[in-house]
Order: sequence, then C-alpha cells, then structure tokens
Amino acid sequence: MKTITSRDNVQYKELVKLAGSQSARRKAGRTLLDGVHLCQSFLQLRGMPEQCVVSESALHNPEVMDIVGQLEAQRAHVLALPDALYNGISQVEHGVGVMFSIATPEREVTAPVSVSAVLLDGVQDPGNVGSILRSAAAAGVTQVYCSAGTAFCWSPKVLRAAMGAHFVLDIFENVDLADLVRNAKVQTLATSGYATQRLYDVDLRTPTAWLFGHEGQGVADDLLSMATHQVVIPHLGQVESLNVAACAAVCFFEQVRQNLT
Amino acid sequence: MKTITSRDNVQYKELVKLAGSQSARRKAGRTLLDGVHLCQSFLQLRGMPEQCVVSESALHNPEVMDIVGQLEAQRAHVLALPDALYNGISQVEHGVGVMFSIATPEREVTAPVSVSAVLLDGVQDPGNVGSILRSAAAAGVTQVYCSAGTAFCWSPKVLRAAMGAHFVLDIFENVDLADLVRNAKVQTLATSGYATQRLYDVDLRTPTAWLFGHEGQGVADDLLSMATHQVVIPHLGQVESLNVAACAAVCFFEQVRQNLT
Repeated sequence: MKTITSRDNVQYKELVKLAGSQSARRKAGRTLLDGVHLCQSFLQLRGMPEQCVVSESALHNPEVMDIVGQLEAQRAHVLALPDALYNGISQVEHGVGVMFSIATPEREVTAPVSVSAVLLDGVQDPGNVGSILRSAAAAGVTQVYCSAGTAFCWSPKVLRAAMGAHFVLDIFENVDLADLVRNAKVQTLATSGYATQRLYDVDLRTPTAWLFGHEGQGVADDLLSMATHQVVIPHLGQVESLNVAACAAVCFFEQVRQNLT
Repeated sequence: MKTITSRDNVQYKELVKLAGSQSARRKAGRTLLDGVHLCQSFLQLRGMPEQCVVSESALHNPEVMDIVGQLEAQRAHVLALPDALYNGISQVEHGVGVMFSIATPEREVTAPVSVSAVLLDGVQDPGNVGSILRSAAAAGVTQVYCSAGTAFCWSPKVLRAAMGAHFVLDIFENVDLADLVRNAKVQTLATSGYATQRLYDVDLRTPTAWLFGHEGQGVADDLLSMATHQVVIPHLGQVESLNVAACAAVCFFEQVRQNLT
C-alpha cells in the first residue's frame, strides 16, 4: 500500500480530475466506483480493479479491510489518502472511504438484439438511468443500449443509483437505436400515453426489447413507429404519466410476472 | 402586477429565504411551486395561489401570460422580477420563469386508513418520494402518510419529481405509522426481500395500504411485523433489490392490473 499526503502529487491530481469532470473521465476512459457496495460488487462480478483508493479512517473498517486484503493478495495497487484528501475526490457523504478506479467498459454493437434488452432514447437524468439499470438487472434483462443523448452510464451518479447492476449487464453507448430496432430479432415494445394496446395484453413470455425515452418528450416518433407494439400502462388516477424509471420497472416486472405464472 | 427591482426589497428577501432553506419554509408554513407545469396543475386542481412570481422574460411566454391573466382576473398578487433576481430564487435550470408561493397544506390524521394508501417509513431521497407520489396518483392511490424521518413532501425537489401529483393527493406528514397500521381498516402490505409470499399471489382488488421503507434498511422491523402481508417481488436476475420508487411502482400497478382484469 502506498500513501499520498500531498495535494500536489500527480496521481492525486489525476484522481481529482476523474472525480470532478465528465470530460476527463471520457478522455481517460476511466471511472471511479465510490463506496463499499460498488467495490464489493465489482470485485465479486468483474474481478480486480486497476487501483483502489482508501481513506485512512476507512482502513479500520472491517469491510474495507477485507477488500484491501483481497487486493493486496493479488498485488493490486492500493493507495491510502488522509481523510481530507480522500474527501476531495469522493461524492458520497458520510460514506465509508473506499473507491476503485477502473477502465470504463466499452462495447461495440456487433450483432442484432436477440435477448431481452432495454433501449434508452435520450433519458437524461442519471438517477433515472441508474434506477432503470438496477430494475433491468433484477428482472433478468441483461442488455442495455443507449442513444448518444442518454446520460453516460459510467458516471458516478448513474453508478450509485444502479447499485452494482452495471456489473451484470452488457452496456452499449452511443448506439444508433433506429438501426437496432430495425434489425432486432425480438419484439420491440415502446410505451406511449397515446397507445391503445394495454401492456397487460401483450404476450411478454418471449424475449422483448423495451424502448424508453426522454423524461419530457418520450420516445422519438420515428423510433416509436418502428416498434412492434406501442403499449400504454393503464392509469386509474387523475395523473396520467409516470416517471420513466417507474414506467420501466412496471414493464420489466410485468414480464417477470408473465414468465412466472 | 407589481415589479421589484432591488435585492434589498423585504418581499424579495423573504422569497430568497423560502427558496433556499427548508427551515425557513417550515417556519413560514409556505413553499414555492417552481415552473409552468406545477403552477398550471395547482391552478387547475387547487385554485388561486397566495402569490405568483414571474421573471420579466417569461412575461412574453404564452403559457405564463395565460396564468398571469387568470390570476389578475381574480385580483391575485403577481410579482414581476428582472431575470437576474428571478434566477436567485429559482432552482429550475433553463426553465420558464414562473412560480407560485403557497401555504403548505397540513393535515391531521383524524380517522383510520379506509382506502388505498401509501405509508412511507423513512424514505429519504426527495426524488424517490416525488416519484412514489407521482406513481400513487397515477394508480389511483389517493392518501399518503409519512413518518417523521421521511423527506418533507412539500420541498421543491419532491414537488418537482412528483409533477403535480401533490394536488390530487391527501398528504399527511409526521405520522405515527405504527398506530396507523394497527388501526387500519384495510389490508397493509409491506415488501421485504425475506418474505415468501409473492406480490402476485395476494388479492389486491380490495383497498390496500402499501408500506415502503428507508432506501438502505427498508421498513422497520416492528412495522413489518404488523403488516397483514409481507410480500416479495420475485426477481429473475442476479441483482436482488429494487430502488424503493421502482418497487412502489411495481406494487401500485400490480394493483391496477388486478383491478382491471
């Protein structure tokens, strides 16, 4: 384990940049997994990180000691920082001071969609994207395709909201969704307040690609018209719309229900 | 319409306090509805606000002109601010500059729960609380009871996330949930990862009180043990938990589905 105590250290300055700037993360092709839960999930599902950073006070935490022990047994890089320096790169308040620095997984689309998947067309809020990833992973939907206008999946906010779901998903970003929908080997479903077919009346026991859109405008019209089914989630109240992450959860778990019953 | 141009104006300073401080809002018993959609919803569902505040540039927006016209016809207070001053009290980026100042609706629990309701036990994230309110309103669940540890429902962040759902709901805060569950006239359902009964196997065609808990710890054990049913949302993926707002959406719309089929 190496300890850094100066804010002027080159490695520390690099971490500050990664923590604070989306463009720095994109440029470096790296991101930070902040907090015990994300680090444990990564270790369990994806293996060793390039680097682990711990705060000095966290070195007494049993969960952190366990993580650091596993890493040092594999001779991975562990960097200890005084709490003041650690807090300069962490966005988690009152958290336990441990984070991994990892290379951002980048995937190219090489084949048409042939299993259940979620397609995000300009979903902007990182909390929504994270929640959708988490729900998808829980429902057994394993592929995620994002348009260029969707929040960057490997940003710290999306990672926190998804609670480790990233590590069981195949995530593709900057995808041409029209092309993907056109060539899909599975049915594609888009929700729309104007649809007449009810979600509950579609057979979801086959693999399904779910298409969700921008928080305000929904799925773009051209994509909507290409979907196999446009469906509506029936409402019983005076309010006629749902948050996109809530909508996605209802869809994914209707598929789970149909598959289990 | 009155125009204020000085930051030292007493009325403006009052608005700055309301915009920036939860304790100021609680002390004054007032809150701000920021943005066209919230203002339109309030006007339509609850009537006149005590005060409307508009930015000078928004006075040319047709939707804002319509709102201001309705208010002035009723001799309601409209306050115009130069954009620089307006931006000092607005938390909506790139929004259209209109907000209402309203008295925070406060309700006392006077009767046991006898219709479908949602009970929030320490749900902390304002975005989650807002999303749950929005889903409840869409599913026809009309009553919301919050424990003391739950995010304040009338904060700007919760209001924004709920997109006007507040105005079709009866919201009770600082409620003793144990007392409420004990005396409920309807079945109470709590979700728990440890439950064995599946959500889909409970008859939801009768009014139901839904109990959701803290993002990390879930529903407190004493409350959980008092619920009529503890249910699990079955998972098909490797991730075994859902965001609380996603979980609530799945529950509410399973109730909708059962009521419609």
